[in-house]
Amino acid sequence: MHGTATGQRQPALHPLTSTDLRSVDTYWRAANYLSVGQIYLQANPLLRDGLIPEHIKPRLLGHWGTTPGLNLIYAHLSRRLAEGDSDIMWVVGPGHGGPAALACAWLDGTYSDVYPAVSRDAAGMGRLFRQFSFPGGVPSHVAPETPGSIHEGGELGYSLAHAYGAAFDNPNLVVACVIGDGEAETGPLAASWHSNRFLNPARDGAVLPILHLNGYKIANPTVLARIPEEQLLAYLRGTGHRPHVVSGSDPAEVHQQMAAAVDRAFDEIAEIQDQARGHTRRAHPEWPVVVLRTPKGWTGPATADGLPVEGTWRSHQVPLARVREDADQLRALESWLRSYRPADLFDEAGRPTSHVDALVPAEGRGLSATVHANGGLLLRDLVIPDFRRHAVEVPTPASTTAEATRVLGDHLREVMRANPDRFRLFGPDETASNRLGGVFDVTDKAWNAATVDTDEHLSPDGRVLEVLSEHLCQGWLEGYLLTGRHGLFNCYEAFIQIVDAMFNQHAKWLKATNAIPWRLPIASLNYLLTSHVWRQDHNGFTHQDPGFLDHVVNKKAEVIRVYLPPDTNTLLSVADHCLRSRNYINVIVAGKQPQLNLMPIEAAEAHCTRGIGLWEWASTDQGSTPDVVLACAGDVPSLETLAAADLLRRYLPDLRVRVVNVVNLMRLQSPTEHPHGLSDREFDALFPPGTPTIFAFHGYPWLVHRLTYRRGFHPDLHVRGYIEEGTTTTPFDMTMLNNMDRFHLFMDVIDRVPGLAPRAAHLRQRMADERLRCRAHTRTHGEDAPDIREWTWPH
Amino acid sequence: MHGTATGQRQPALHPLTSTDLRSVDTYWRAANYLSVGQIYLQANPLLRDGLIPEHIKPRLLGHWGTTPGLNLIYAHLSRRLAEGDSDIMWVVGPGHGGPAALACAWLDGTYSDVYPAVSRDAAGMGRLFRQFSFPGGVPSHVAPETPGSIHEGGELGYSLAHAYGAAFDNPNLVVACVIGDGEAETGPLAASWHSNRFLNPARDGAVLPILHLNGYKIANPTVLARIPEEQLLAYLRGTGHRPHVVSGSDPAEVHQQMAAAVDRAFDEIAEIQDQARGHTRRAHPEWPVVVLRTPKGWTGPATADGLPVEGTWRSHQVPLARVREDADQLRALESWLRSYRPADLFDEAGRPTSHVDALVPAEGRGLSATVHANGGLLLRDLVIPDFRRHAVEVPTPASTTAEATRVLGDHLREVMRANPDRFRLFGPDETASNRLGGVFDVTDKAWNAATVDTDEHLSPDGRVLEVLSEHLCQGWLEGYLLTGRHGLFNCYEAFIQIVDAMFNQHAKWLKATNAIPWRLPIASLNYLLTSHVWRQDHNGFTHQDPGFLDHVVNKKAEVIRVYLPPDTNTLLSVADHCLRSRNYINVIVAGKQPQLNLMPIEAAEAHCTRGIGLWEWASTDQGSTPDVVLACAGDVPSLETLAAADLLRRYLPDLRVRVVNVVNLMRLQSPTEHPHGLSDREFDALFPPGTPTIFAFHGYPWLVHRLTYRRGFHPDLHVRGYIEEGTTTTPFDMTMLNNMDRFHLFMDVIDRVPGLAPRAAHLRQRMADERLRCRAHTRTHGEDAPDIREWTWPH
Repeated sequence: MHGTATGQRQPALHPLTSTDLRSVDTYWRAANYLSVGQIYLQANPLLRDGLIPEHIKPRLLGHWGTTPGLNLIYAHLSRRLAEGDSDIMWVVGPGHGGPAALACAWLDGTYSDVYPAVSRDAAGMGRLFRQFSFPGGVPSHVAPETPGSIHEGGELGYSLAHAYGAAFDNPNLVVACVIGDGEAETGPLAASWHSNRFLNPARDGAVLPILHLNGYKIANPTVLARIPEEQLLAYLRGTGHRPHVVSGSDPAEVHQQMAAAVDRAFDEIAEIQDQARGHTRRAHPEWPVVVLRTPKGWTGPATADGLPVEGTWRSHQVPLARVREDADQLRALESWLRSYRPADLFDEAGRPTSHVDALVPAEGRGLSATVHANGGLLLRDLVIPDFRRHAVEVPTPASTTAEATRVLGDHLREVMRANPDRFRLFGPDETASNRLGGVFDVTDKAWNAATVDTDEHLSPDGRVLEVLSEHLCQGWLEGYLLTGRHGLFNCYEAFIQIVDAMFNQHAKWLKATNAIPWRLPIASLNYLLTSHVWRQDHNGFTHQDPGFLDHVVNKKAEVIRVYLPPDTNTLLSVADHCLRSRNYINVIVAGKQPQLNLMPIEAAEAHCTRGIGLWEWASTDQGSTPDVVLACAGDVPSLETLAAADLLRRYLPDLRVRVVNVVNLMRLQSPTEHPHGLSDREFDALFPPGTPTIFAFHGYPWLVHRLTYRRGFHPDLHVRGYIEEGTTTTPFDMTMLNNMDRFHLFMDVIDRVPGLAPRAAHLRQRMADERLRCRAHTRTHGEDAPDIREWTWPH
Repeated sequence: MHGTATGQRQPALHPLTSTDLRSVDTYWRAANYLSVGQIYLQANPLLRDGLIPEHIKPRLLGHWGTTPGLNLIYAHLSRRLAEGDSDIMWVVGPGHGGPAALACAWLDGTYSDVYPAVSRDAAGMGRLFRQFSFPGGVPSHVAPETPGSIHEGGELGYSLAHAYGAAFDNPNLVVACVIGDGEAETGPLAASWHSNRFLNPARDGAVLPILHLNGYKIANPTVLARIPEEQLLAYLRGTGHRPHVVSGSDPAEVHQQMAAAVDRAFDEIAEIQDQARGHTRRAHPEWPVVVLRTPKGWTGPATADGLPVEGTWRSHQVPLARVREDADQLRALESWLRSYRPADLFDEAGRPTSHVDALVPAEGRGLSATVHANGGLLLRDLVIPDFRRHAVEVPTPASTTAEATRVLGDHLREVMRANPDRFRLFGPDETASNRLGGVFDVTDKAWNAATVDTDEHLSPDGRVLEVLSEHLCQGWLEGYLLTGRHGLFNCYEAFIQIVDAMFNQHAKWLKATNAIPWRLPIASLNYLLTSHVWRQDHNGFTHQDPGFLDHVVNKKAEVIRVYLPPDTNTLLSVADHCLRSRNYINVIVAGKQPQLNLMPIEAAEAHCTRGIGLWEWASTDQGSTPDVVLACAGDVPSLETLAAADLLRRYLPDLRVRVVNVVNLMRLQSPTEHPHGLSDREFDALFPPGTPTIFAFHGYPWLVHRLTYRRGFHPDLHVRGYIEEGTTTTPFDMTMLNNMDRFHLFMDVIDRVPGLAPRAAHLRQRMADERLRCRAHTRTHGEDAPDIREWTWPH
């Protein structure tokens, strides 16, 4: 091992006085005691009596392995918080770190502040123990219910991205991010190391990664713990970090090393920030990282059943699994608990003693009480300039064109200008491609690496975060929102599914926080999905996927919203609404290509407010019951529907056609399923029972069937949408491949309106021929099929 | 820059003779010419006439930026393939590398072999150009249609994982993996660098990563191109690699550097392999990596419209975008094309000249013709021992218990034993947790890093791949399957959604290959999802998510299959079927906890073959039309359904209850939608029209509604399933939270069977009370609610 030669290990420094050492160690022992108690005890929390089986929980669930390391880190961060002048937040990356976060929050008094029943005394300690991994209680990982956390410890890989999101625009905050060596094997975490290339030490806070190498994941050693230390240190240096290695299993020695490493790290952060804030920016600052190498399950049983436990994967969960049944194990547990000397830690009433309290900060000042982890407390409204000033002129429907996202970009520029400290745009290198480039009039892309003469819009001060990783975009944005700021993630529609799992976890977090009174609402997570399924002219099949919508609607109605604005002005209105909302996940799907403008801004706003509406200007039912309803949701489906309506007016002028457009997809659901659901009465007024409806939908057709399942009109509903047919081809050909083109919609009407088929057989054939002619044109000439723009309107 | 000091750059070596240099450069120029032609030309492919606008495609689509670098790499790999004794395959990671792969495959003759219309002459060249990014043609990235590739260049991040999957168990293969510096920012790619820790140089092939730093992604510089070179080299060394840097823009100089680097890399690979195969294993072999730093859009236009293009992000797509309209640009394009000296490259007939052919290997020997990229050619059936020998005894239903996945693990052990060269198991550190540990009787976990005394089942020779990254598991498995082998991915159900996007791309790949005659079928991608939504006793809400099923069924019916075996013997039968199948994605969901055994092996096999069936042994309808159908899919729903049927027999003995179990979810769909769909006649025989059906389902309930949408029984169908309610709690409490418990199913029957409600009101109340009693028990005592095991059977 060459670590000592090349790492920044500081074994000679022993910064802790014996008093400091005692307070840090006492706190640590207290946290460890409380952690073991949570896993095992349902009674006798202070060990006033000898342990008997009845004191033990009937099912032993929980995770010990990572806990002592987390407690150690917390103790040292608390010491630093008391001494330093930085705000500190911690993020617990390792899985199943719940016992540690709960123990420390209870020791600090924060837990009892938010959950008074779990008081800071013997009774509360009993409740703390009992609720852990108990039915209806708290999970074994850090959760929304845990004070001091913005990071769920369930699914792994996102801690460091969350930490960076929290640090952006938080100049006085240091986010200490504990990274488990298991978690470090995940893709999102591996990509996150380079996040420092996007951080501005002058204006942003800092992230202090603490890589905790306890050596094991569930059942295996970890990669980073088992490669030569010189490789590990080279790896970290390669990501722009200066490593400080802490390694050992003797507590006093590790405390001294850890205190030295933490002090050194905070000093280095201060030095980088001082330089940057003094306008002498260093080109490539080397940020500190602490590497903490301690045994898994440290201070727990060395062996069980004759097999090694401490320092192996066997300490991952419950090291002694049969304490209730096995008297030897029960004695081993008791001596394990007593090894922390509980009488030294807690007084008669079960309150932490003054030895423990030496490291506990004043009320509300503990690490677990940071307001940054309860972003709603810090949230300030966005200043949103009037979006109507960007409205496009629409003298008559479909007479002008615009690129919807480009116009939205102009609006976002004004939002960016008005909120220089609390709004950011995130995207995987697609902001310009998605035509939101207007924002670069007032800001740049965040970049803290080398630049060359030909670069444009790169600056450490940029507020647009572009990295070719949907995971980082999502993780950074989540961290930014959870600490009380606002943002928008723009992405190609097909590739947003890269973050499906992260979306799940954020949706679950929001659902859980709705039931936690002390967590105040945060800004919604806004997705703008563009470069969508219908317009992948050269990318083809791999880029054609609208499945994120199906994924989103699986989550609780109370936290999800989906919008499909059909044109530019409706996109402006929808975006304004989403940016103002709280505690939702808003998904907006909108095209970036030139497309017809349909609605003047006032009408667009009214239409979006309703979320679903009859387009009288394209309908011929004149307020009577129509012969057919043409419904549509999404920009391309709306275009094809309007074109089909035009064909119907031309060839079947007597047919009463109603055109209905859906912007807010949730309006389709029953109000019993989603708060935005249209009442059945309103729904039936739009879609009269017994009238055939041909619905052209942006995504997979069955989503419309699903959303309208409780409506009474199944037999009348016929949905066209993406049926997983695609290739490199023109926009019109894509609608043809998936049977959603205007001619096919026309044919659907003939097939569905009772009595129409016999007399319109020649028209049906004509449309079928027209489709083939268009297909042939596209594939011969390499250009889109002849469009039909010269529509005449009924009104 | 300290690169030269610390990197393994070899500027002094000039291994190419002037003849070699000429042949490599000529090939490169030819490939570049063909690439530019694909982007621009629809006629006049050989430039026999001066360019006029009519020669230019009406829409200019495609990507030039990455292409010259890829062509260079291909030329040098071809040189090496001709000289060396290794099989070589290349994987094209950079996005939109289509023009390069197509140009080189055409030059090699491979393209014309599989697509005879695109002949290796002027006419074929014309077709090659025209089809590119043309409606109905080929996309701008490497696709299934591209010979020599196992890797779709659409979604980014998976190249290196695919390369390792291809290398496993392929001792003579070197997989040269080109990694784009954009792609390198993604999480999956960042995690993939450490894949070498899982590769055995004695038995596996090798991966040669070629990191192509052209400096830009779509609109931004890339991180790895803009950090100090000493950091870049440290980063690569930290991942276990020895970097060889090639850097420049003078072709002759770059050719010499590149040839030297490639030779050196192959020598180092041979040295590592020789040592390992001579049984003198090196603990941590340092694998070569080539870092290729050349300008983006190299050899293209230096400027356009007065702005720099070559060497900037502006060369990403079409460097000269207005050649059809702008005479100056047309002239610039012509001089760009002529700069490759086409007369030196192609003869009168449009065939490559002998100068080009010097680097073209004999027919069928080119890089693009490798059989490894058409895995179906190499596929050998799995030897599958009889699964029946692992069957559990089931004297009567529900009288014994087993852990289904543990028994499957015994079967997988035998599969592993019988196929030591072509079957692997993949999992994110969960194989033991998922109780498949039986396989460790005959193999180990692949591990080529340090070991300690307490380790178990770690070996370089292990055939179980465990890494805490679902992305790597999926990517490795895909690469392994696509090169003609077999495997199974076991994963926690909730976290499989981490690879939703990768699943999409593999499903799209399979769908596309079904239409490509020269691609032979490969083994199916098998998922075993366990630790499922209903059994997350201490993990809680974050681990409760059955949404992958909804995600899967969005893809084409021809490639997806979903199985929900209700017990151990049915799991064995389903797994056997899946392991034998081809070109599908099979999803199996099965619990790992002890559960009741329901069916003897013969009955289980028959039931799984039908995929859906009436459980007569639990039904009381005696062949008549039932009063109610209790349907179920999944192990926990089946248990609750059987318990509800027992309660009904006890309390409403006259009620005719039919129990139907669904193993193969696709049987629910109409045969017009899925080839496994039950005919309407068979369906109506199981679910008689007009009879209420209470369906207890493993996942989100609406999936059953969706699958049965075209069946006639909507008003009669009532589905219970996961409704996104969860917490840390007992298995029984989970069913209660989601209204799928036996008591609720009983109440549903009372509510749904006509005429039952009035006379059974007291029973409904009794069940409601029982539910609350069970909930209270769970939450008070911390153990599961009292189970009902003492069932009596009607027959």
